[in-house]
Amino acid sequence: LKIKNIDFGSREIIIIAGPCSVESREQLLETTKDFVGSGVKILRGGTFKSRTSPNSFMGLKEKGLKLLKEAGEKLNMVTITEVMSQEQLEIALNYVDIIQVGSRSMHNYPLLTALGKLKVPVLLKRGFGSNIEEWINASRYIQNEGNPNIILCERGIRTFEHATRFTLDLSSIPIIKNRTGLPIIVDPSHAAGDSELIIPLAKAAVAVGADGLMIEVHFDPDSALSDGKQSLTPKQLKKLIDECKKVALAVDRVIDPQDKT
Amino acid sequence: LKIKNIDFGSREIIIIAGPCSVESREQLLETTKDFVGSGVKILRGGTFKSRTSPNSFMGLKEKGLKLLKEAGEKLNMVTITEVMSQEQLEIALNYVDIIQVGSRSMHNYPLLTALGKLKVPVLLKRGFGSNIEEWINASRYIQNEGNPNIILCERGIRTFEHATRFTLDLSSIPIIKNRTGLPIIVDPSHAAGDSELIIPLAKAAVAVGADGLMIEVHFDPDSALSDGKQSLTPKQLKKLIDECKKVALAVDRVIDPQDKT
Amino acid sequence: LKIKNIDFGSREIIIIAGPCSVESREQLLETTKDFVGSGVKILRGGTFKSRTSPNSFMGLKEKGLKLLKEAGEKLNMVTITEVMSQEQLEIALNYVDIIQVGSRSMHNYPLLTALGKLKVPVLLKRGFGSNIEEWINASRYIQNEGNPNIILCERGIRTFEHATRFTLDLSSIPIIKNRTGLPIIVDPSHAAGDSELIIPLAKAAVAVGADGLMIEVHFDPDSALSDGKQSLTPKQLKKLIDECKKVALAVDRVIDPQDKT
Amino acid sequence: LKIKNIDFGSREIIIIAGPCSVESREQLLETTKDFVGSGVKILRGGTFKSRTSPNSFMGLKEKGLKLLKEAGEKLNMVTITEVMSQEQLEIALNYVDIIQVGSRSMHNYPLLTALGKLKVPVLLKRGFGSNIEEWINASRYIQNEGNPNIILCERGIRTFEHATRFTLDLSSIPIIKNRTGLPIIVDPSHAAGDSELIIPLAKAAVAVGADGLMIEVHFDPDSALSDGKQSLTPKQLKKLIDECKKVALAVDRVIDPQDKT
Repeated sequence: LKIKNIDFGSREIIIIAGPCSVESREQLLETTKDFVGSGVKILRGGTFKSRTSPNSFMGLKEKGLKLLKEAGEKLNMVTITEVMSQEQLEIALNYVDIIQVGSRSMHNYPLLTALGKLKVPVLLKRGFGSNIEEWINASRYIQNEGNPNIILCERGIRTFEHATRFTLDLSSIPIIKNRTGLPIIVDPSHAAGDSELIIPLAKAAVAVGADGLMIEVHFDPDSALSDGKQSLTPKQLKKLIDECKKVALAVDRVIDPQDKT
Repeated sequence: LKIKNIDFGSREIIIIAGPCSVESREQLLETTKDFVGSGVKILRGGTFKSRTSPNSFMGLKEKGLKLLKEAGEKLNMVTITEVMSQEQLEIALNYVDIIQVGSRSMHNYPLLTALGKLKVPVLLKRGFGSNIEEWINASRYIQNEGNPNIILCERGIRTFEHATRFTLDLSSIPIIKNRTGLPIIVDPSHAAGDSELIIPLAKAAVAVGADGLMIEVHFDPDSALSDGKQSLTPKQLKKLIDECKKVALAVDRVIDPQDKT
Repeated sequence: LKIKNIDFGSREIIIIAGPCSVESREQLLETTKDFVGSGVKILRGGTFKSRTSPNSFMGLKEKGLKLLKEAGEKLNMVTITEVMSQEQLEIALNYVDIIQVGSRSMHNYPLLTALGKLKVPVLLKRGFGSNIEEWINASRYIQNEGNPNIILCERGIRTFEHATRFTLDLSSIPIIKNRTGLPIIVDPSHAAGDSELIIPLAKAAVAVGADGLMIEVHFDPDSALSDGKQSLTPKQLKKLIDECKKVALAVDRVIDPQDKT
Repeated sequence: LKIKNIDFGSREIIIIAGPCSVESREQLLETTKDFVGSGVKILRGGTFKSRTSPNSFMGLKEKGLKLLKEAGEKLNMVTITEVMSQEQLEIALNYVDIIQVGSRSMHNYPLLTALGKLKVPVLLKRGFGSNIEEWINASRYIQNEGNPNIILCERGIRTFEHATRFTLDLSSIPIIKNRTGLPIIVDPSHAAGDSELIIPLAKAAVAVGADGLMIEVHFDPDSALSDGKQSLTPKQLKKLIDECKKVALAVDRVIDPQDKT
């Protein structure tokens, strides 16, 4: 799956990074200022937020999309944001390169069907209460309508263990690779819910065979309007990428095509 | 919560029954022919179906809604159907009295927000991967927009136990009653996935304090286009209601207001 | 299964009650003083305690067994206690009528095998991480050795829902009844972990077809050395039994054989 | 933790391998003939088997222990077997270097207490229904009695996902490392239940920071008396070790001390 200069499912492991929510031009600027040349290939930023409580910060919506597009152009990077409805989808298509379907929307079949009628690449996260078979079936809602541009994303499932927000199910990576031809990435940030666990889990994800990583970053996690607890600082992100580069080489993959095996 | 002549959350336990999917006029007729006077108060019928696989029967959509409305008028009964998107909602509002948000849509916040702007009664099922706190928060998406007409429905959660499709969490009934003022009913059909378990679970639901039951019925479960395995026959439904009437009286409730304590 | 004057699996629903832990003669006396004639048939009391932390109260052991036996004789009641090893079993056999295998020991196959070589009635609780099939298999470890005197006890399984300590899986009652000929009771106290939920769950257990209930009671729950939060007072126990008597009659069972249908 | 020439929790990643069950001298011989020099450091072999059904193969018991000891001496390797009771422990202590407490025995507190009174190294597997906090508490049952020689082993937890037997929770590795000073290894064989998943999961375990791996091997998995489906062939084991060696170096660890970084 090629998206501009990015080739999902190739030898290259694709790093997607950015803030949980787009909060302001300054926040995007501060958070992404070291992205160029760091190994990050795609800029993420939440603009329509799916929050458990209706009293939480809901995202900057179209204003956030404009900021995300501006930042993407400045960094010369592909961008991605999540949508939860066809109405949001129509707006987001004007601004971003990849549409994310979040964990809470994996079973939103009308949305999946609408995405199937487009050619836009779709990042389909696993529902946290959904098994692998249902996840594959959800991807078929998109494929059956004619859109083959799908990337899956493991982000943890709900279990009795509450030391982490969710239990990252890394077994899903080789299973998905055996059963489908789709690229699959891992989001350790939402699974762990704790920045200390993200680097080890990212390395495990690379080792198990993931085609990419999605990492939440914020220049000042303590001030983040959402998910600060699980956001890395730009400096921690650099450490993550440096360590993952070594693991990538050990499994015959690369994060930066210039890296030698 | 009053819906026509029905009073949710009162001493009366409200029975909702009908086929998983509306399949034809004949199927509705055969399935519901003994409903009048049986204790059933609301006619359910799926018209927009939320199916795991895109290759499954997807419901008759507006044609099904017309049949459901026709059957409801004939039976002089309130009707309910599920919708998964705002587009489906707009169509369904022309035909039914109550809108159901299914388990897979509990986190569909744009849909909940749209429902909050109406006055239509909403039956909000629990997400099968969602905890009680998230479920209450989902109800607030509707309430905060101004629509107080909400009924919750416990339908089982996903656990490691696979002897049943889902594990019916009857503890949620007294917890919801303690934490909210909302009426709450139980759907034993989807939880059990097996018609033999439905009568005992329905009796347990009444005993634990549920304000109603939602039961899938089909005149010929073996020929059902969806969920036949968990559908009761009209005769089994009669048995269920007869047995639940006795349990209802034992907990100072009634299914049929004519029943004496 | 007859144990003295008690007939498990008959029309009668057997109430087992008593403190989580035997703490002192006074505590047993105060807790059980209204048991005679109340509907309670069996006196429970923990003497070898299975505690998550090695720093918790571990039970009075043989001293507790002596107190339990004394109280049982005074009340003219059958007694039950839990053991976790063959060594504890040998001691307990001198004092109690029924041996309980706790949830954490359901897979303790050497203990089950040892119990199979005796004739003592065994109450086998479901492992909180174990499915119904494994539970039935555990009972076969006892049966295959020649001891048919088994009572199963549903006490909740571990799920992602943390509003309760465990999720009481009442579907297991009709499933066990369909698949085995064994009597099965319900322990709502450990599942709920909250005394407010116990009465509604006990009524649900009776309605779903359980052959008995096991309830933790303490004359002063706030001072209990273990599980105070989920213990009923003697007064709450009376309320539970009164309400369950009505539900029992509604499902053609009785708690007290004198009760009329 | 030093066991003979083996240093758990050091830079070296310790490979434990061997058959699920010791079946015969020939089976041990065939299975282990390439172990010397391969990177395997410890020979495992089940002799007292913990089986769900009492009709399954229960292990060769003391006869198996003799064969295991013989094989260990021949290979000049440390040996490990699982026990489920104090009686089995007393026998096993005559033959093996490390005692394993299996997942089903993690809450067997009398057994843990008995092990605490010895100095024998204990491999304590996580209960498949137990959270991390309970697992740490179980280790304290051993430590509090005076035995500090403990290795923890993550082997998967029970979740709703049934594409694997259990869900390997690799987040537990960094969490255990943060909260305790104990070495921790990973058993991907029991978690996956499928030999195709074991190599990728083993690599992930090394990348996430595990101090060792425990792998089931059989010279002819199709003929294995237990767990054949998840057993690697000796050839697959070699591939696993070769690939894990590279990942080990990428995270500044080694499997074979001769390997250069």
